[in-house]
Amino acid sequence: MHAIGIDIGGTKIAAALVDESGTIIRSDRRPTTASDPRGIEDAVVDMITELSEGEDVVAAGIAAAGFIDAAQSTVYYGPNVNWRHEPLRATLEARLDLPILIENDANAAGWAEFTFGAGRGYTDMVTLTIGTGVGGAIVADNHLFRGGFGCAAELGHLRVVPGGRLCGCGAHGCIEQYGSGRALLRIATELADAGGIGLGLAAARDRKGKLTGKDVGRLIQEGDNGALAALRQLGGSLGQACSSLAAVLDPQIFVFGGGVAAAGELLLEPIRAAYLENLPARGFHPEAEFAIAQLVNDAGVVGAADLARKHVFAQ
Amino acid sequence: MHAIGIDIGGTKIAAALVDESGTIIRSDRRPTTASDPRGIEDAVVDMITELSEGEDVVAAGIAAAGFIDAAQSTVYYGPNVNWRHEPLRATLEARLDLPILIENDANAAGWAEFTFGAGRGYTDMVTLTIGTGVGGAIVADNHLFRGGFGCAAELGHLRVVPGGRLCGCGAHGCIEQYGSGRALLRIATELADAGGIGLGLAAARDRKGKLTGKDVGRLIQEGDNGALAALRQLGGSLGQACSSLAAVLDPQIFVFGGGVAAAGELLLEPIRAAYLENLPARGFHPEAEFAIAQLVNDAGVVGAADLARKHVFAQ
Amino acid sequence: MHAIGIDIGGTKIAAALVDESGTIIRSDRRPTTASDPRGIEDAVVDMITELSEGEDVVAAGIAAAGFIDAAQSTVYYGPNVNWRHEPLRATLEARLDLPILIENDANAAGWAEFTFGAGRGYTDMVTLTIGTGVGGAIVADNHLFRGGFGCAAELGHLRVVPGGRLCGCGAHGCIEQYGSGRALLRIATELADAGGIGLGLAAARDRKGKLTGKDVGRLIQEGDNGALAALRQLGGSLGQACSSLAAVLDPQIFVFGGGVAAAGELLLEPIRAAYLENLPARGFHPEAEFAIAQLVNDAGVVGAADLARKHVFAQ
Amino acid sequence: MHAIGIDIGGTKIAAALVDESGTIIRSDRRPTTASDPRGIEDAVVDMITELSEGEDVVAAGIAAAGFIDAAQSTVYYGPNVNWRHEPLRATLEARLDLPILIENDANAAGWAEFTFGAGRGYTDMVTLTIGTGVGGAIVADNHLFRGGFGCAAELGHLRVVPGGRLCGCGAHGCIEQYGSGRALLRIATELADAGGIGLGLAAARDRKGKLTGKDVGRLIQEGDNGALAALRQLGGSLGQACSSLAAVLDPQIFVFGGGVAAAGELLLEPIRAAYLENLPARGFHPEAEFAIAQLVNDAGVVGAADLARKHVFAQ
Repeated sequence: MHAIGIDIGGTKIAAALVDESGTIIRSDRRPTTASDPRGIEDAVVDMITELSEGEDVVAAGIAAAGFIDAAQSTVYYGPNVNWRHEPLRATLEARLDLPILIENDANAAGWAEFTFGAGRGYTDMVTLTIGTGVGGAIVADNHLFRGGFGCAAELGHLRVVPGGRLCGCGAHGCIEQYGSGRALLRIATELADAGGIGLGLAAARDRKGKLTGKDVGRLIQEGDNGALAALRQLGGSLGQACSSLAAVLDPQIFVFGGGVAAAGELLLEPIRAAYLENLPARGFHPEAEFAIAQLVNDAGVVGAADLARKHVFAQ
Repeated sequence: MHAIGIDIGGTKIAAALVDESGTIIRSDRRPTTASDPRGIEDAVVDMITELSEGEDVVAAGIAAAGFIDAAQSTVYYGPNVNWRHEPLRATLEARLDLPILIENDANAAGWAEFTFGAGRGYTDMVTLTIGTGVGGAIVADNHLFRGGFGCAAELGHLRVVPGGRLCGCGAHGCIEQYGSGRALLRIATELADAGGIGLGLAAARDRKGKLTGKDVGRLIQEGDNGALAALRQLGGSLGQACSSLAAVLDPQIFVFGGGVAAAGELLLEPIRAAYLENLPARGFHPEAEFAIAQLVNDAGVVGAADLARKHVFAQ
Repeated sequence: MHAIGIDIGGTKIAAALVDESGTIIRSDRRPTTASDPRGIEDAVVDMITELSEGEDVVAAGIAAAGFIDAAQSTVYYGPNVNWRHEPLRATLEARLDLPILIENDANAAGWAEFTFGAGRGYTDMVTLTIGTGVGGAIVADNHLFRGGFGCAAELGHLRVVPGGRLCGCGAHGCIEQYGSGRALLRIATELADAGGIGLGLAAARDRKGKLTGKDVGRLIQEGDNGALAALRQLGGSLGQACSSLAAVLDPQIFVFGGGVAAAGELLLEPIRAAYLENLPARGFHPEAEFAIAQLVNDAGVVGAADLARKHVFAQ
Repeated sequence: MHAIGIDIGGTKIAAALVDESGTIIRSDRRPTTASDPRGIEDAVVDMITELSEGEDVVAAGIAAAGFIDAAQSTVYYGPNVNWRHEPLRATLEARLDLPILIENDANAAGWAEFTFGAGRGYTDMVTLTIGTGVGGAIVADNHLFRGGFGCAAELGHLRVVPGGRLCGCGAHGCIEQYGSGRALLRIATELADAGGIGLGLAAARDRKGKLTGKDVGRLIQEGDNGALAALRQLGGSLGQACSSLAAVLDPQIFVFGGGVAAAGELLLEPIRAAYLENLPARGFHPEAEFAIAQLVNDAGVVGAADLARKHVFAQ
């Protein structure tokens, strides 16, 4: 039996009809207007209606950035769409004759990775999504971890430097400030300013006036020493965070997704080294695996669909 | 139906016959010799046999410090008793006609607190045990969190200061170095050396040659400003760790146990203040409760008994 | 017998015909286009040809920033001109009927200073060139020190602060980040922001929108307390580095060149003080001299010419 | 032609008759009394006389800890024997009809390693001797580096932490405080105090009242996790120092001797990792080799003999 997954991002809504093996049967995509929550609702209703036509659909899962309540009905707060205590589930169920589940987008993506991607065969996994920010998901004993208020796992806001860089969350020193795509760009820009090893970065910056994540990604692929130095610094910070997460959560595997994870083993190598260097009780504590996520762009919709389907059958 | 709980500490073994409501029917206590694992085994077998006499006992749970494997059968490593990959469950089941469960002592105590103590009525709880070190337990969606290798939750080894104090786990900057009873004593001793507000601490130290945890505890109760300053510093560090744990685990309540928790609200107040000061997305993220543990000395045996009973019925 | 020295900088190529006493007979200067390595080659060939006309020239030495191989033939990597593993010696010798030697520019300048400037009469010298960055040269027992891979002496990348400021070399905490002209400008700008002693710096900044190295240099000459404070901070960092270099290299004299060295004794005084304060085994270890370089703009061409001449006669 | 090497240590004098291939023909050993410089002189004269009987000996080299003047005649200062500006060469040459050379003991050992041990085939080597302290020797372009005052290379006093631990040299933060055998013992003792991973260390300490370097060495060989954690921390500090030394000296190989080097690859692994993590211009700068010294106890006498022989023929 099929389910529908919807992923509401900052610039587009992705939708897909997904079967039980995580395969996408059909998909759709529309632009979003963040300032028009009602227009987003209409688009979601339309897309679900169209993808359902002639299909046996049991549920739809909606993935969105932000804090979702523990009952998975209400969006407390969304950074992309201007929702504040929005009863999205009730609103959508009133317009569609279908069970609806609301899920945080990083959790949905993490669940897809656990069920159909790099996490298959494990029981306990931590996913870190290295995009503009750092998102996270925890699977413990085969269950997605949501937290007591539905806000887990905001892994990007683990504090790694007391009194460190101010974060968009209002606190200081979060790993998001040292391990995200935005942090990579900041480090790369600092290296471009510094000259020396950063000359390749400086050349890319000077062609367009400023560096982009795409430039840095391309230079990493080309083996530019400055871009590789920036990536190693990022990986070192992430690996140190992983050693703390190992103490708290003790996963069997850490999976890295998001745009920066395209660097593959070049990213995993410094992460692994810093994790081992800082692992509490090294030698006694079994060591986790490190892998790159396998479901790249589709993780959100596939995970949302699967969670919605499983939620229906769990009741 | 009753179960037996055993708590193997560094200096004694506590044992109790516990009913389904967490009430202790009868209990026993014997000294341990850490260097004599065989003697400890014999004592455990004896105590279980005696407490079982004439009772309908369904299982026994053994709480011990250290890493227990995910199958809850083997002690990988115990800091108090010299166990290395010890198949304790098989050894005991071979000598007793009773299902046995091995559990980490902080997990057992946390579970007792969740089921019969300060955690009742919640679904997601984090316990921090502030004794000589800092122990931890996580309950998520009513389940005790054990981790993929059985080593969770070593909350005392969350890193809070990069390159900070060397910890007994071999890493640097763990919260145990800033938030434990041993840390409280170190801070108090530094204040005694510094004069000023530390004069009361210095006087207590000079009477005996060195400060003890008991001295500091007494001075806290008497309202000595130096001892209170040391406690506030400890609480500030713990509260900062709680804000990181809130981002990762999102519990509804943090419960503090262990000897230092006898300070009660004097400890909770600086913890709560530092938690709020550092909480990511404050204002959007629901705020957790903070409480002192209710089952003080009995938490280990009560939790071990309850987990063993529930394990039997879950199969 | 004369030799020709060439110094390829970021914005110009300097060339000179130099006699055995280090005196410049004739000189030339042309602008560079960093992105046009072929144009730079052509200019170098032209300048050597013109300066050689009617002269008995035995060799030409080419000074360039970057890593030169141990055989002094190939530029591994140049920060100013986009050379990567460039066989510059072979290319030039094929076009000119003259022995060519390639040398790092800081080494060439250090050698000139040792042979004809502030280092005369010593056997062991360390030069630190305080320009935009920090360059270095070592003379040991009358020989220029090149290192096993030809990359010595990158004295600007001695680490002085673990986990300190990100450097253009991709590492953190290099002395270049605390002791260069760029560092002086950063410190001066921080003081301008801070008010108080920095009011003179702030006034200079507010006239043009931002501080320049020239402004800071002028204020130092005028005795502005803020600019002098910035210079003392710079000198303190450099002096601490000198005490480490004394332990490793044990020179008889440290010579300071580059634009910032125009401050003369005002720079040397805090350097000497910090050196003495941090000198290992002070009292037992003989103390080095400190001096300002004497060959300012010509050091590169004079040193390159002299090294090339001596290389020819050494064979 | 043979030469004699003498190594004056804190507790004994070692002497050997050494051939041109670095092979020891005969050797001798006597206890020292540090407070009796005259007795030491007598012993040295005796040993040289006896070892020379019936042999064609061209020179004798004396290795001693401390600062030797650039002419290799006078001991400025010796930590083991109470020498202050002692004209040891003149004194010995007056009593023996043989050319004498005085050399710092770490330099002598480094030279032996370069000529007959792990440094064979290289031109530029740095040796770090990890004994009670940290000694060093530099070979550059096949020459032993002595410095302008004869005091190089005191590599143990490279400062790695500004304002760090007070060192026996009177300065703060020298690598000797973080990378020596004494530092290893301090870290191991801290881990023993801290419990946890340090239990094996604590057990060893409790058997005798305090830990010894021998205990730590044995536990490293046995794979004790606490001892390995202490060694990794030591190696990390040494590797960071090597990345600074690479910028300054650019050796092709780093060779590690002294008692702690018996740990072999267990020591080299964290050294190499920290070196790479902190290497300036990584990717552009060729990477050095890392090796364990091969001439363990004999390096001092073999190197002193070889340097003395070569000194005679160089004149």
